[in-house]
Amino acid sequence: MNTEGLLAQRMIRLKSSAIRELLKHSKMENVISLAGGIPSDALFDFEGLSQATQLAITEQPKNAFQYGLTEGSHALREQITALCAERGVMTRPEDIVVTAGSQQALDLVMRALVNPGDIFVVESPTYLAALQTLELAEAQLLTVRSDRDGMIVDDLAELLKTQTIKGVYLVPTFGNPSGVSLSRARREQLVTLAAEHRFLIIEDDPYGELRFTDERNPTLFELAAALNGHTDNVIYTSTFSKILAPGLRLGWVIMPAWLLHKVASIKQAADLHASSLSQVVAEYYLGLGRLPAQIETIRAAYKRKCEVLASLLEQELGEHVTFEMPKGGMFLWARFRQPRNTAEWLQETLKQGVVFVPGEYFFAAEPDHSTFRLSFATATEEQMQEAVARLKRAL
Amino acid sequence: MNTEGLLAQRMIRLKSSAIRELLKHSKMENVISLAGGIPSDALFDFEGLSQATQLAITEQPKNAFQYGLTEGSHALREQITALCAERGVMTRPEDIVVTAGSQQALDLVMRALVNPGDIFVVESPTYLAALQTLELAEAQLLTVRSDRDGMIVDDLAELLKTQTIKGVYLVPTFGNPSGVSLSRARREQLVTLAAEHRFLIIEDDPYGELRFTDERNPTLFELAAALNGHTDNVIYTSTFSKILAPGLRLGWVIMPAWLLHKVASIKQAADLHASSLSQVVAEYYLGLGRLPAQIETIRAAYKRKCEVLASLLEQELGEHVTFEMPKGGMFLWARFRQPRNTAEWLQETLKQGVVFVPGEYFFAAEPDHSTFRLSFATATEEQMQEAVARLKRAL
Repeated sequence: MNTEGLLAQRMIRLKSSAIRELLKHSKMENVISLAGGIPSDALFDFEGLSQATQLAITEQPKNAFQYGLTEGSHALREQITALCAERGVMTRPEDIVVTAGSQQALDLVMRALVNPGDIFVVESPTYLAALQTLELAEAQLLTVRSDRDGMIVDDLAELLKTQTIKGVYLVPTFGNPSGVSLSRARREQLVTLAAEHRFLIIEDDPYGELRFTDERNPTLFELAAALNGHTDNVIYTSTFSKILAPGLRLGWVIMPAWLLHKVASIKQAADLHASSLSQVVAEYYLGLGRLPAQIETIRAAYKRKCEVLASLLEQELGEHVTFEMPKGGMFLWARFRQPRNTAEWLQETLKQGVVFVPGEYFFAAEPDHSTFRLSFATATEEQMQEAVARLKRAL
Repeated sequence: MNTEGLLAQRMIRLKSSAIRELLKHSKMENVISLAGGIPSDALFDFEGLSQATQLAITEQPKNAFQYGLTEGSHALREQITALCAERGVMTRPEDIVVTAGSQQALDLVMRALVNPGDIFVVESPTYLAALQTLELAEAQLLTVRSDRDGMIVDDLAELLKTQTIKGVYLVPTFGNPSGVSLSRARREQLVTLAAEHRFLIIEDDPYGELRFTDERNPTLFELAAALNGHTDNVIYTSTFSKILAPGLRLGWVIMPAWLLHKVASIKQAADLHASSLSQVVAEYYLGLGRLPAQIETIRAAYKRKCEVLASLLEQELGEHVTFEMPKGGMFLWARFRQPRNTAEWLQETLKQGVVFVPGEYFFAAEPDHSTFRLSFATATEEQMQEAVARLKRAL
């Protein structure tokens, strides 16, 4: 690893502990947090989860409490296959590994894929915890900027003229932190490039179902199947954390067979398999048929919360701050019109009792210090009103 | 890594896939398995687990289904502290990280500790899945033989004259696969050596509670506190898998602070935290006060099953096979009196419909091909009777 790479890695570590500190603040009394990417538990389907848990322990107590398969239970993988099909991701149970959230999917995939020094491209800005898994695997990171249509794939194409890359990691739909989605044209361009230049795409899709409009972009996985005739270089990961319950720690990852064997073997050494109890509960929950309505509930609530936050920001801070209206997901990504270091500003807003995440934490290189991420998922409307008032006072 | 190290690693990978294949066989109809280290679910306290689960979802639904702390819930870490105190392991909640079984504890600790090429010493034979975590971390392995009193610590002392080692990994009580326990004198010698030579001890203690006699050796953690005045170089890990339910995927690891911070930061990238649902269920189960009685139940049943298997072996195969009578745990470690390759013999026993694990899989170097591991935890007494008859027919 070169010095630049090492420096970048040290930055990621520092950022990650900075965010841990930040989240501690957000638990302090009287502090309103717009920082964490935590689903609102006021929206959890406790009735359905309770029913599913009852069924798990009465109908399948042995499966719920005994060791299971490293790849995940057959029953759950079959249901995930059906769930994926509705998203246009056509797969088979044997192509899936059930993981402890998509966070573990990223970590296992990076451990299986990356040799120290391998080049991975990430969006700028990108999801911080993915950077941590790339760092642990000692990947070398290159960044490609994003705009309102997601990653600027032309810039990636330019980069590919001089660099051989192992893969591209991105959240193409309702990105974290940017909130933007990759346009249809750029999706097609990206999967075509991947086949031409033989690199892997890691498609991280935790938020795809949380759309606020009827606009629905095909997944990169689906487009690769259509345009390339195969999905050999797309790794698709998703999670139950944002649509059902993060405490189950259940996600999944779809991979080509050669990678799946490696990932399963590392998972065996890493934790044997995901919680059996969580898996059986998820299996029954999906069996109850309540997920589509639950997703509708979350969509409607987050859409409303997003609109509230956006209009408050517009109204109270519009002369100082600009942002793109999210079409889904959990995050609003804002930028000061005039340069302002938001990490420093955070010290002021903390005094007023409100926290957010400074945008600089999400850049692997060349941070835009004037940016910041606000989550509209966790806070109530009243809290958002008070939070924005406090942000204004901190200016 | 030198060529020898690479060869050793390839061996571990091969062994690990061989065992995966083996366990597939063990799920075939009419095959009796003495292979897997799987607790008998006939002994699970389903009534208590069901009560605890009910309590979890009625009393703490938010905690059960929402994100939690990377280190594990405060409540569970407090109960683990009390549980450890009964074992003579005096610790504090803030020294504990709750993991997805002790398997994850090993993987996280190795990722945090090991730089490629660091020397780790393991027992010969030793627990295969620990070798896998050491392999993934690119440790260089050295082995020290075991006898009926566990690792021959004199040999380790000899080795320390010429080698600087990072750590020693061992299962000091009712070892897997050997079934033996490290004697009191050797325990004292080992913790003293660790302080003198400044290496770490990773004390893996999944089976310590499963003792069949009143004999109880202090943990290395306890002895280090007593003899060295501190536990800075002992990492203690244990699990709920063998005493409660493996499907919860809950274990824990106790570490010095400098290591705990590193482990927590890697765990954050690896899976954020263990299943919240599993943690709240374990918290209520421990609160019900049923664990001591449950451990007594398992002890009595495994003791009986161990005696049955041992007397059958003695009676039917005694002229060919020798073994040490286990004083606890789940495994009986046997050896042919005359050299015989048990991996080859397994092909014969498979035809008769019985599987075990060939001993060679548990050696990091210089395997003893005449050894084999039998588990008495899973099979019923009737199955063991039939299994031993089949083993005899395969001779």
